[in-house]
Amino acid sequence: MKVTLLVIGKTDDKLLRELIDKYHSKLKHYARFNYIEIIDPSRRKSMSVQDQKKQEASKIESLIDKQSRLILLDENGKAFSSRSFASFIENEGLQGNSNLTFVIGGPYGFSEELKIKSHLQMSLSQMTFTHQMVRLIFSEQLYRAFSILKGEPYHHD
Amino acid sequence: MKVTLLVIGKTDDKLLRELIDKYHSKLKHYARFNYIEIIDPSRRKSMSVQDQKKQEASKIESLIDKQSRLILLDENGKAFSSRSFASFIENEGLQGNSNLTFVIGGPYGFSEELKIKSHLQMSLSQMTFTHQMVRLIFSEQLYRAFSILKGEPYHHD
Repeated sequence: MKVTLLVIGKTDDKLLRELIDKYHSKLKHYARFNYIEIIDPSRRKSMSVQDQKKQEASKIESLIDKQSRLILLDENGKAFSSRSFASFIENEGLQGNSNLTFVIGGPYGFSEELKIKSHLQMSLSQMTFTHQMVRLIFSEQLYRAFSILKGEPYHHD
Repeated sequence: MKVTLLVIGKTDDKLLRELIDKYHSKLKHYARFNYIEIIDPSRRKSMSVQDQKKQEASKIESLIDKQSRLILLDENGKAFSSRSFASFIENEGLQGNSNLTFVIGGPYGFSEELKIKSHLQMSLSQMTFTHQMVRLIFSEQLYRAFSILKGEPYHHD
């Protein structure tokens, strides 16, 4: 399976970056994993939030494989348990969708156009996390999902 | 308001510990904040999970103020949004409960006895996070809650 995690903006905090990297190294044992940070393509004070989101969207679209499923991390998206998220990945693979791209947006979220083009919007929690911390939390969930699918003892119910 | 965060087991990861510390320093501007790590009181291979949980429970009970509200972080607990969590804290204060103790358990969760004695069980997500990472996520939520109550611009809906 090919899994891409695409995030808007660089990870500012060095500590957070190191923690995230650990999970990404582990993920590479399970999947062809790519991590892409889109370095603030549009963070300009003069630009409206709407225009920023549009510019981010076209940048995202230019970077994802044509055959990849686009999944956006969005607070109002579908909530999964860790096991049901693992099943989701497994089912996508069984249906022949072995190329998944997950996107973590910037502080303003995604444009409506990108949402419409996405396969799914998923949420990690009803709570709002910092979009920087979401990178760590989601990376751990991806690792957890693959460890569940491999039947490894990492996850406890 | 007095807020105590009590966790079972030390935070192994140095990076995680530093990130957590940052939020705790910030929290001290808003509340009388205490952080207590109960260093594995019972992590003995010879002890059953049941007995471990019991021993952890009595250690927790011995450490909390008599007048404090006990709130357990538990996967099956009540889900809050960041705003509704802030309102919960505010309402407790308005009702005269200005001493709250939040507890993050170990890998096995809490004993039934402790759950019964608790005021509330709350959940951060349907997903399972590492109990170490929960410390960071929850510390940020506590900080976020107080910043919401202060009307500060940290939180965006």
